[in-house]
Amino acid sequence: MKISIFGHGNMGKAIGENFTKAGNEVEFIGHDSAADAFGEIVILAVPYSSITDIIGKYADKLANKLVVDITNPVDFASFDSLVVPADSSAAAEIAAKLPNSIVAKAFNTNFAATLTSKKVANKETTTVLIASDDNDAKTKFISALSGSGLKVINTGGLKRARELEAAGFLAMTLAASEQIGWDGGLTVL
Amino acid sequence: MKISIFGHGNMGKAIGENFTKAGNEVEFIGHDSAADAFGEIVILAVPYSSITDIIGKYADKLANKLVVDITNPVDFASFDSLVVPADSSAAAEIAAKLPNSIVAKAFNTNFAATLTSKKVANKETTTVLIASDDNDAKTKFISALSGSGLKVINTGGLKRARELEAAGFLAMTLAASEQIGWDGGLTVL
Repeated sequence: MKISIFGHGNMGKAIGENFTKAGNEVEFIGHDSAADAFGEIVILAVPYSSITDIIGKYADKLANKLVVDITNPVDFASFDSLVVPADSSAAAEIAAKLPNSIVAKAFNTNFAATLTSKKVANKETTTVLIASDDNDAKTKFISALSGSGLKVINTGGLKRARELEAAGFLAMTLAASEQIGWDGGLTVL
Repeated sequence: MKISIFGHGNMGKAIGENFTKAGNEVEFIGHDSAADAFGEIVILAVPYSSITDIIGKYADKLANKLVVDITNPVDFASFDSLVVPADSSAAAEIAAKLPNSIVAKAFNTNFAATLTSKKVANKETTTVLIASDDNDAKTKFISALSGSGLKVINTGGLKRARELEAAGFLAMTLAASEQIGWDGGLTVL
């Protein structure tokens, strides 16, 4: 499967390595990329604040694709709340702007180091939590990561993105306050 | 220290065992209890829907106590959302009704079986996440559980109860959908 990834930071690279290891073709989309035809799965591995621009530029080409939002829309000024409405989520906001795409939330509860090592705190297998209203898309995502060494758990419909974003934010606050390491995190056992 | 616990279900009993093991005196408050003088720490180990009645009856006696809310205010009809406002939390609602008490959120991300066994999925030490605006109260709570075999992590102010309740709800949906066991859960590594 072809996987297109916006963003080439720690998260984008770590996610790309996993899809490559699982036997997929991975392309990174940069600011200057031509980006003619995206793969079946498109990963938005950029800060939440950059997503509106991407949607503005590429909404048509994202139609019928599985678009995976990995963001934690943290208010970095206060580090005490999210910037999305409390009864919504970054994923829901993105889905509203991409009515012709299939939107999923995934990877936002994983720190980059754990996607590379496949272990949380060197102990337990890194588990990716995914939420989407489209069951076929989730099956495709799980299949595309099969062989990567990551576990994937289907947490339900896109409404669960709200809880995934709360969990991702909570993990970030614990790491930022040095109560856990950036090689650790919240995990499901 | 004397710990008073409302509720004698799976959670109340498991929490009581831990405080007893750590060397505290534990009393359970039932419907017919006299409840003259509560301990320094009072645990509300009852469903969220029962808490308004407890506050109505005992608000005066809860003054100056550390009142620990362990609830997951799940809408059990839909099992798809919480019953508290999206920008609030059960703990914040309780704190608003108990202005003379110190309110903390804790234990809501732990399944009862993991409080008894001290292990999540028989693998990792069970970790209690606490949030409160009162640092002395959190120190007291952590001290009271010292020796129980549980780990405790301070997640910050009571505002973090929102994320703790999201995490607790997420874990419950995963167990209810049999993706994890009730001896497992979300944990911090």
